[in-house]
Amino acid sequence: MSAAAWTELLERARGGHVPSISRLISGLESRQPGTSEVLTDVYAAGGRAHVIGITGSPGAGKSCLVNALLGELRGRGMRVAVIAVDPSSSLTGGAILGDRIRMQDHALDQGVFVRSMATRGRLGGVSRATVDAVAVLDAAGWDTVIVETIGVGQDELEIVRIAHTTAIVSVPGLGDDIQAIKAGLLEVGDIHVVNKADRPGADRTAAELTGMLMLSDLRASGWTLPVLLTVALDGTGLPEFADALAGHLAWLRSSGELVRRERVAAAASIRAIAKELLIERIQDPAVGSRFDELVEAVAARRTDPTSAARILVDGVARPSDLNPEKTL
Amino acid sequence: MSAAAWTELLERARGGHVPSISRLISGLESRQPGTSEVLTDVYAAGGRAHVIGITGSPGAGKSCLVNALLGELRGRGMRVAVIAVDPSSSLTGGAILGDRIRMQDHALDQGVFVRSMATRGRLGGVSRATVDAVAVLDAAGWDTVIVETIGVGQDELEIVRIAHTTAIVSVPGLGDDIQAIKAGLLEVGDIHVVNKADRPGADRTAAELTGMLMLSDLRASGWTLPVLLTVALDGTGLPEFADALAGHLAWLRSSGELVRRERVAAAASIRAIAKELLIERIQDPAVGSRFDELVEAVAARRTDPTSAARILVDGVARPSDLNPEKTL
Repeated sequence: MSAAAWTELLERARGGHVPSISRLISGLESRQPGTSEVLTDVYAAGGRAHVIGITGSPGAGKSCLVNALLGELRGRGMRVAVIAVDPSSSLTGGAILGDRIRMQDHALDQGVFVRSMATRGRLGGVSRATVDAVAVLDAAGWDTVIVETIGVGQDELEIVRIAHTTAIVSVPGLGDDIQAIKAGLLEVGDIHVVNKADRPGADRTAAELTGMLMLSDLRASGWTLPVLLTVALDGTGLPEFADALAGHLAWLRSSGELVRRERVAAAASIRAIAKELLIERIQDPAVGSRFDELVEAVAARRTDPTSAARILVDGVARPSDLNPEKTL
Repeated sequence: MSAAAWTELLERARGGHVPSISRLISGLESRQPGTSEVLTDVYAAGGRAHVIGITGSPGAGKSCLVNALLGELRGRGMRVAVIAVDPSSSLTGGAILGDRIRMQDHALDQGVFVRSMATRGRLGGVSRATVDAVAVLDAAGWDTVIVETIGVGQDELEIVRIAHTTAIVSVPGLGDDIQAIKAGLLEVGDIHVVNKADRPGADRTAAELTGMLMLSDLRASGWTLPVLLTVALDGTGLPEFADALAGHLAWLRSSGELVRRERVAAAASIRAIAKELLIERIQDPAVGSRFDELVEAVAARRTDPTSAARILVDGVARPSDLNPEKTL
C-alpha cells in the first residue's frame, strides 16, 4: 500500500470505521511500507483519549475486571478500547483465543475495540506495537484506551508509564511474592483496586495497601490514592472504579499534572522503543556470525559474558563519550 | 583495590571463605576498578556447579520452596547458593529484608549462601550481576547454585536460560492469567512442581500440566518432564524434587545435552548483558540533552515515539548494514 492509501485508511479510522483501525494497527505493527509516513499524522491527530493502565498480579482477575469496566464505561456512553499486553507464548495461541472470548460480550458493539499483543514469538517490539495502537485509537477519537499489562518485569513496568492514569489490581490471600510486586507497582499506581473482594481477607488486603500508601511519600502529589473494593463477576464497585478514573483525569487536568504525565509517557515510549530497536540491531544477521563466535568463547570459558557483550555492543554502538552534537 | 587484590580475594573465595565471595560479588556488581580483569579468572575457574533455575507465578510459594530445597540439598552434603532475582523496588527494601528472613534458617551454615538482586532502583544491570554472581559461586566450588526468578516478563524469562536445569513452580487454584504464564514458561521447564499440594485442586493442576506437556512437543528431547507435588512448609515431596534435579543433571551429562545447554546459557547471558549495556548508553548524560529534546517533541505531538527512538538509537548505534568484519 502507498503512503496515500494509509492516509485514506487513517481518515476512515477517524470516521469511526473499526476495520480500518484494525488494519492500520496491523500495518504499523508489521512495518508495512508507507506506514512510517502515516505515523506522524496519527500522532498529530491524537491527544484527547484518556489512556488508562491496568496492571497487577497474575491471578488478580485483571481480564475479568477490564471486561466489567468496559461494560460500565460503555453504559456511560464512552467508546472504549483495550490493548492487552499478554505475556503468553506463541505455543498456545493464548492471545488470540483471549480476544475471542473477551469480544463475545461486546462483539456487535461498534464502540468497543479489543486487541492482544503477545510479548513472545512475534516480529518487531511489543512496546512499539502497543504505543502505536494506543495512538491509532486516540487519533480515531476513542474516549478511553485501556492498556492491560501484567505487573511484573522491567519492560512491563516501563510500558505502564504510557498511561495517564494507572490502576493496580490486587487480590486477597496471595502469598509473600505479591507484596514484593506491590512494592514495585506502588510507585506507578494512581488508583488501587482489591478485586475478588467477596473473598475472605479483602478488607485486610485493602487495609494493608492503605497502610503501605500512608508510609510512602506517594500521597504528597495532591492526589489522594483511593483503595477500592470490586467484584468483577457481579459488578460490585465498578461504578466507583469508573468514577475514580474520571476523577483522576479531572485532577490531572485541573492540577496541570497532565502536562507532566504526557512528558513521562513520551519518555517511557521513546525509551521502550529505543530498547527494542537496539535489540534488533544485535539480532541482525550481519552481527550474527560474530555473536556465534562469542557464544563459543564464553561456553568454552575463554572469556566472560560481560566482555563478550561489550565486544558485541561496541560493534553496533558508538562510544558514548563522543561530542553529543556530533554523535546525535 | 588493585587487580592483584581482587585475585587474592578470588583465591580466598575458592578456599571456601564466604565473606570473600560476598565482597567479590559486590565488587563485580558495582564495577569496582580492577574487577573486570578478575572476571576472566572467575570464568576460567568455573564450570562444575549445577545451575538450577526456579521460577513460576507469584504466590506459588517459590521462596518457601527454595528454602526447603536448600535444607534438603544441605542434608545431602551439598553446598548450596541461592541468587534471588527479585522484582521489588528500592522503596521497601524488600530484597534485603527477604535475605535476612531467609538466612535465619541457615545463618550459621558455611555451606549456604543467599543473595537477592533487586531489579529496580539499582546501578548496573541485574542480568550482569546475576550472571557474575553465579560464576563467582561456581568458581568458589559451590555444588549447586539456584537462581530464583519470577516467571513473567521478557527479561525475566531470558535470565532463566542461564540455568542447566529449570524447575517451574505452579500452585493449585489460581486464575486464568496463570495459564498464559505457564504457556510462556512451558518451553523452558525441565521439571514441574505443583507446590501447596495440600490445597484442593492440586491433583487437577498436576493433571492439566501433564496434559499440556503431552500436547506440546517438549517431550521429544528424550527427557521425560516430571510433574511433582510438594508442600514446602512440611517438606512433602522435597526428596523427590531433589532426586529429579540430580536425575536431570545426570541426563544432561549422559545425553550430551549439557554442552548444548552451556551454549544456550552463554548466548542468553551475552544477550541479556548486551541489552543492559545498550540501555546504559542511551541513558548516558552525553545523550541526555538530546533525549530531553526528543521527549518534548513527542509530548507536543510534533513527532512520533518510533521516529524519536530511531534518532536516539542512530546516535549511539552504527547502521547494521555495514560490513560485519569492519563493524565488529
